[in-house]
Amino acid sequence: MLPQAFSEIDFLAKDQIKTDEESLKYWGKDWTTYFDIKASAILFPRTADDVVKTVKWARKNKIALVPSGGRTGLSGSAVATQGEVVVSFDQMNKIKDFSPVDQSVVIEPGVVTEALQEFAHKQGLFYPVDFAATGSSQMGGNISTNAGGIKVVRYGLTRDWVIGLKVVTGTGELLELNNGLVKNATGYDLRHLFIGAEGTLGFIVEATIKLAPAPPPMKVLVMAVPGLDSVMKIFAEFKTKTSLVAFEMFSDKALAKVLENTGLAAPLETQSPFYVLAEVETRNEQDEEHALGVFEKCLEESWVTDGVISQSEVQAATFWRYREDISESLAKYSPYKNDIAVTISKVPNFMADLDKILASAYPTWEVVWFGHIGDGNLHINILRPPGMSKEEFVKECRKVDVMVFDAVKKNQGSISAEHGVGLTKKSFLNYTRSEAEIGFMRGIKKVFDPDNIMNPGKVI
Amino acid sequence: MLPQAFSEIDFLAKDQIKTDEESLKYWGKDWTTYFDIKASAILFPRTADDVVKTVKWARKNKIALVPSGGRTGLSGSAVATQGEVVVSFDQMNKIKDFSPVDQSVVIEPGVVTEALQEFAHKQGLFYPVDFAATGSSQMGGNISTNAGGIKVVRYGLTRDWVIGLKVVTGTGELLELNNGLVKNATGYDLRHLFIGAEGTLGFIVEATIKLAPAPPPMKVLVMAVPGLDSVMKIFAEFKTKTSLVAFEMFSDKALAKVLENTGLAAPLETQSPFYVLAEVETRNEQDEEHALGVFEKCLEESWVTDGVISQSEVQAATFWRYREDISESLAKYSPYKNDIAVTISKVPNFMADLDKILASAYPTWEVVWFGHIGDGNLHINILRPPGMSKEEFVKECRKVDVMVFDAVKKNQGSISAEHGVGLTKKSFLNYTRSEAEIGFMRGIKKVFDPDNIMNPGKVI
Repeated sequence: MLPQAFSEIDFLAKDQIKTDEESLKYWGKDWTTYFDIKASAILFPRTADDVVKTVKWARKNKIALVPSGGRTGLSGSAVATQGEVVVSFDQMNKIKDFSPVDQSVVIEPGVVTEALQEFAHKQGLFYPVDFAATGSSQMGGNISTNAGGIKVVRYGLTRDWVIGLKVVTGTGELLELNNGLVKNATGYDLRHLFIGAEGTLGFIVEATIKLAPAPPPMKVLVMAVPGLDSVMKIFAEFKTKTSLVAFEMFSDKALAKVLENTGLAAPLETQSPFYVLAEVETRNEQDEEHALGVFEKCLEESWVTDGVISQSEVQAATFWRYREDISESLAKYSPYKNDIAVTISKVPNFMADLDKILASAYPTWEVVWFGHIGDGNLHINILRPPGMSKEEFVKECRKVDVMVFDAVKKNQGSISAEHGVGLTKKSFLNYTRSEAEIGFMRGIKKVFDPDNIMNPGKVI
Repeated sequence: MLPQAFSEIDFLAKDQIKTDEESLKYWGKDWTTYFDIKASAILFPRTADDVVKTVKWARKNKIALVPSGGRTGLSGSAVATQGEVVVSFDQMNKIKDFSPVDQSVVIEPGVVTEALQEFAHKQGLFYPVDFAATGSSQMGGNISTNAGGIKVVRYGLTRDWVIGLKVVTGTGELLELNNGLVKNATGYDLRHLFIGAEGTLGFIVEATIKLAPAPPPMKVLVMAVPGLDSVMKIFAEFKTKTSLVAFEMFSDKALAKVLENTGLAAPLETQSPFYVLAEVETRNEQDEEHALGVFEKCLEESWVTDGVISQSEVQAATFWRYREDISESLAKYSPYKNDIAVTISKVPNFMADLDKILASAYPTWEVVWFGHIGDGNLHINILRPPGMSKEEFVKECRKVDVMVFDAVKKNQGSISAEHGVGLTKKSFLNYTRSEAEIGFMRGIKKVFDPDNIMNPGKVI
């Protein structure tokens, strides 16, 4: 960055700017580990007006800006690799307003997901978007990647809870989008354009979030499943006959890693190639009977060979660990992660395709599967073979990517179900979006960010 | 239209083109009655490819196209007033595919809402977007205006059920957007841009619609309410303590017109300035007890002075007529309709503001209120005073519009909750959307429709 441009930042206080090496490394990256970090400065706006002035300053000086939230992203969308100036929302983390009548809350983008969940809980309400990184991810980042997670079957995605958005565009304009309205049929809904845009059109400076009623009691079932086809049958049965909140699948390899890493006892005595975790709402005894009835039917049909249902909240939480501790248990193997989706009905064929590809191309590699089957989202983790260098491993995985994404394309799926495109998936975007679509996306980018200063080089 | 351009339409069969006066009048308009209809031809594509060819032909010859669905719109969005060529989707009305696993259905845009509702019902599922015009409105039009209606409190808007969209842009490109995926974080979600765009960016040629599980049994309550403040308290109580599907309000004047027109008996002996209709899910006896408990609390608090709960499905349907027959009962007064929204918490102040405006400006006029209070959407109907000409009445109503929209703006509301902008609200768009937003909307329009041939002059 030019020192001259830097001297023009008179709209921020000194403690709103960091340029020391440690800070540049810390705020210049997300959870991805494959990029060389090169940030020029970290700015910490405290108000929407600070952001407007920052963007106008950047525009005047042709300086690229990278937005930074909780830095838990897995696609490199919040990574500075080209000497960009990072705009951190760490100091815009207030819950500004709450309306019990509207059951909505006005927040700054730096509010941590868990803080919003806890605030909602205190009001007798519920913020239902839930995933592993809620303790540090920020709402601005969640909105910018349309975060999903484990309760999508019942509660949908982040998009479904955003009823208002204030953004600063790449032209430095502050837009107030939708103002928390439920019904508003007045032309293009720009709010939905900014949700999932990964900061490439503008930065989110405020959001109005709808809250859900407090959830009823839940039961968690863990079941041993002999085959993939059965997984889908079990899902259909639970989806139709219970109020299903989550439906997760993991392989025996995934479970083995969790047991090894956590010291937890196995959930079931029966060994099985696949396991399924189902969470269902149990408002009353009748609901619980329904859930047990579905489980019994699954046993009778031999779709499951064994199973257990939680008897307490503590036990339910333990059952969830078999699924939620997978990522952490794999961390020491530096897994190469993929996050892909197809429609639910295509999951069995798609997984069979992938299994063949991976087994034939890399028969000795260890591949760990888990996924949100209830919404067609699979996470594939390839573990680094002992002795292989990180560089060689990544290079080989990129070859796998092409084969995996070919299968995604064949099944009309998504190369990024919930992590976003960022830098990691950018060159594969055309496996999910057509060239014509990408062309229109570029056109839209130019409308909101004519100087290409808002997170340039990401997504498209 | 130039005869030469017309002779180039070799991609449609003869019976896919109508130019007789009667057809031009019939397909050239929607339910609005204030516009002079001037269409040049009506085309009836049968396939997405027909639409691609039509757009390419129009682009080459600089001919403006107007999309036409069930023609039940109330904003003039599907009206041809400038010699445009109308593209009717009447012959693209097939339900093409159904997936029980995904609980989704692939439809052509000309499918009538009620046909989709009935199809879903036959599969043991539910298409929940419901409003007065479902018997003739088409799904393409619903999507293009993001139709809402009476069950938004529980089920959301049309937007929430569209999981895939095929569109033909103003450049003649066929885009397949989202392919029915639940999770897909791959950049700008163009699907949401086309929803509610009123055909100004492109035409919808196919949609994948998610279906809901079959709804549980319902009870309908009709209650006499002494004041507006009470309406909101009753709403809060039902919203928090029951599974509320609909919450509708209407004034004594609205009820009087329905009774006069239909010959129905009054729902309650008690006279009251306002009435509320609440529909709640009653899965079991406990749910019903909850609903009755809420009603009793409302009585104790004097928020309601009288009430009745449906004892059968037939009675529930009758209760709904007090609300749903309002529009029809008003038709003979050629009412001037407005469809506006604010957030729920602002409804009481906003209604008080409006009441003052209307009473002071037009003390002798008869104004009939009703609305979807559960989502902040109010319908104001001004009845034409006896003896006043239609032209003079409309002119006077336009003056009222400005005052009403000033109040909307002050309350950060929407000048069109669910009818859309079309021609009727176009000049008032800046009451809800900022000039900067409108500028960006124009920019987006240029990206998808550079020659301004897709429903030009509508919305922006």
